[in-house]
Amino acid sequence: MQQIFDQLTPAQKREAERQLSLYMSGAQEVIPPEELREKLAKSIVTGSPLKIKLGLDPSAPDVHLGHTVVLNKLRQFQENGHIVQLLIGDFTGKIGDPTGKSAARKQLTDEEVQHNAKTYFEQFGKVLDQDKVELHYNSKWLKQLKLEDMIELAGKITVARLMERDDFEERIAMQKPISLHEFFYPLMQGYDSVVLESDIELGGTDQHFNVLMGRHFQEKYKKEKQVVILMPLLEGLDGVEKMSKSKNNYIGIDEDPNEMYGKTMSLPDSLMKTYIHLATDLELEDKKQLVKELETGAVHPRDAKMLLAKTIVRMYHGSAAAEAAEQQFKKVFQQKSAPDKMTDVHWKGGETIPLIDLLAALELLPSKSEARRMIQNGGVKINGKKAESIHENMTVQDGMIIQIGKRKFVKLKMDK
Amino acid sequence: MQQIFDQLTPAQKREAERQLSLYMSGAQEVIPPEELREKLAKSIVTGSPLKIKLGLDPSAPDVHLGHTVVLNKLRQFQENGHIVQLLIGDFTGKIGDPTGKSAARKQLTDEEVQHNAKTYFEQFGKVLDQDKVELHYNSKWLKQLKLEDMIELAGKITVARLMERDDFEERIAMQKPISLHEFFYPLMQGYDSVVLESDIELGGTDQHFNVLMGRHFQEKYKKEKQVVILMPLLEGLDGVEKMSKSKNNYIGIDEDPNEMYGKTMSLPDSLMKTYIHLATDLELEDKKQLVKELETGAVHPRDAKMLLAKTIVRMYHGSAAAEAAEQQFKKVFQQKSAPDKMTDVHWKGGETIPLIDLLAALELLPSKSEARRMIQNGGVKINGKKAESIHENMTVQDGMIIQIGKRKFVKLKMDK
Repeated sequence: MQQIFDQLTPAQKREAERQLSLYMSGAQEVIPPEELREKLAKSIVTGSPLKIKLGLDPSAPDVHLGHTVVLNKLRQFQENGHIVQLLIGDFTGKIGDPTGKSAARKQLTDEEVQHNAKTYFEQFGKVLDQDKVELHYNSKWLKQLKLEDMIELAGKITVARLMERDDFEERIAMQKPISLHEFFYPLMQGYDSVVLESDIELGGTDQHFNVLMGRHFQEKYKKEKQVVILMPLLEGLDGVEKMSKSKNNYIGIDEDPNEMYGKTMSLPDSLMKTYIHLATDLELEDKKQLVKELETGAVHPRDAKMLLAKTIVRMYHGSAAAEAAEQQFKKVFQQKSAPDKMTDVHWKGGETIPLIDLLAALELLPSKSEARRMIQNGGVKINGKKAESIHENMTVQDGMIIQIGKRKFVKLKMDK
Repeated sequence: MQQIFDQLTPAQKREAERQLSLYMSGAQEVIPPEELREKLAKSIVTGSPLKIKLGLDPSAPDVHLGHTVVLNKLRQFQENGHIVQLLIGDFTGKIGDPTGKSAARKQLTDEEVQHNAKTYFEQFGKVLDQDKVELHYNSKWLKQLKLEDMIELAGKITVARLMERDDFEERIAMQKPISLHEFFYPLMQGYDSVVLESDIELGGTDQHFNVLMGRHFQEKYKKEKQVVILMPLLEGLDGVEKMSKSKNNYIGIDEDPNEMYGKTMSLPDSLMKTYIHLATDLELEDKKQLVKELETGAVHPRDAKMLLAKTIVRMYHGSAAAEAAEQQFKKVFQQKSAPDKMTDVHWKGGETIPLIDLLAALELLPSKSEARRMIQNGGVKINGKKAESIHENMTVQDGMIIQIGKRKFVKLKMDK
């Protein structure tokens, strides 16, 4: 199994081991590490880069830090000369859901697929080196497949194996129907790896079954089997659920620097270690050092978190924006003062009005009931002083500063 | 459900009911009879014939009475003006077994498929009216199917439904693997009916699951659903197992008239009713009459069986041959005498020889051990006298008649 590795020079061996340990860092599972070592050895000897596949759903992309866990891992491969294969699963996107049951899976046009792929490519460009990315569309080969080819492909896997997939197992146990075509998707994902001759496939731990399909089918088609690297799923800001847009516990990579910094600072301390490892591009040694300092108490958690926040902003907005966001944060939260620049809101109404009506009229909160909740929770300050009662009659003054939550500040302008 | 039937004239209703009762006679199951009545009503009103599908495996055909059960049923449809669709399943025959495990399912060439289809067509011509047969090859549409079409097709059936097929259920219970491609075959069989727009599909009861697929998929593709007619499986001459070549309990439709007649006469009495209904082309009323006479004892079982045998020979060799076979049978078995014409065998050996060696030397039995068994069972007669002992020393004489079993007679000629 390590025939090539055994033949390396000591320096080459050290290089293979260095890369191996880099790629394994932060990974939940590598299947199997010894094959990854051997592939690295081969790449070092031949000078040929490895091909690292990441499969992407072609539906509307909205990239957040959760996605960057795999992207950061891909970036590590790129920095060592390897090539990323971004595989846009456009074939399935174009056929929609044949049962017609899932409204979510609507049929995408060629233009939508192209647009979404372009968006992925651009957003991923904040992490990846675009020169070392190949963009592939699986419709290129899948739409050519005939029934005869599908029979050959399907002849290489058993029904029992497919039923092992967690969601299938659950539905069988609950006697919920599985349409036969659903069994085709893992096959197609596996076949993509056969065509792309991928050396490695990355995925989140929730992709465990699917990415192993590539390994399975490459072997059946007598190709070298890909190694599978499963990355942990990043918990969201709530510290409980997987980061996702629908849970509103995410940090989008297109978000404003101050928002990004502030959101990171709201992270539970318990998640810091995970974020340092999975969501930053720090050197492996620096990550380990920082985590160690946190564990020994050599660094204050707040300072470590500020470093984390600054790093994340720097990754997506550059050093200057990161520095500015840090200054802004210090000013607002640490010195408890309003930020230098504030949005002006204009007021044409009366000089005396209940606070809740003022907030609603200025549209500072989505609804009156949200305004009520925010005031009751002590989240509204007028000129730095917490508002006490919902129905408090306000004397509206020009230049008055209204603070909503931790990070939203506006200055009221009387329009007379 | 019987909208069209209800609008028929009384005479048309009688005609629909007559055909319905004809087609249901001898069938194990008709799914569902009321749809068949409605299809017949429609055919009577429009004057359009119904299309009756029979699917055939394209591997080497060797047609025996077991096959004719469905052919006789098809013939009934033809006699009332309907059209038979013989569907040669050449697509699967041409792709072989993708797992490579089944040596039996070898890949057939186009020439082999054509040859086998031609043989079917010719052999079936002994029962069917070839002018009312359409020959279809499913490769015509199946080889055009793309993955996209397959996903659509597979989206119209659940995994649970497929696993209900008896042999799948058994294998799951026994934890024997099922390759995913095996799930494709019922889909293809169903899709054939969608393409052919068959009104009715015939099959043996062992085809229950597969022929229902046509109904299932026609509905999913918004076509009129086919009615399914399941015919009983004909037991073989042993009265136990399904008639099949491998069990050597069959009557081939190409067999010699005397052999065919004699084999039929060896049928257990208990199977006569079944054979009268399933294996003859007698009028339905005549069948019922004969069975009734058997049950009441109005006819002797032997006479009924002779009528059955004569009918079967007449169906495949004509009336003259049937008459001759009957005369031959009467002479040999009823008068216990040798037939008029016998094969001569020539003997150049000595005049005294053990019987077993003589039989072997004349090649009257395949091996010495079979000769031994036959003698021990009293199956060998010399000039009408049962041979008693294996090692009996024979005095060989010119013109000596040797009888092996019930129907094989030879006359020995001394070549000096």
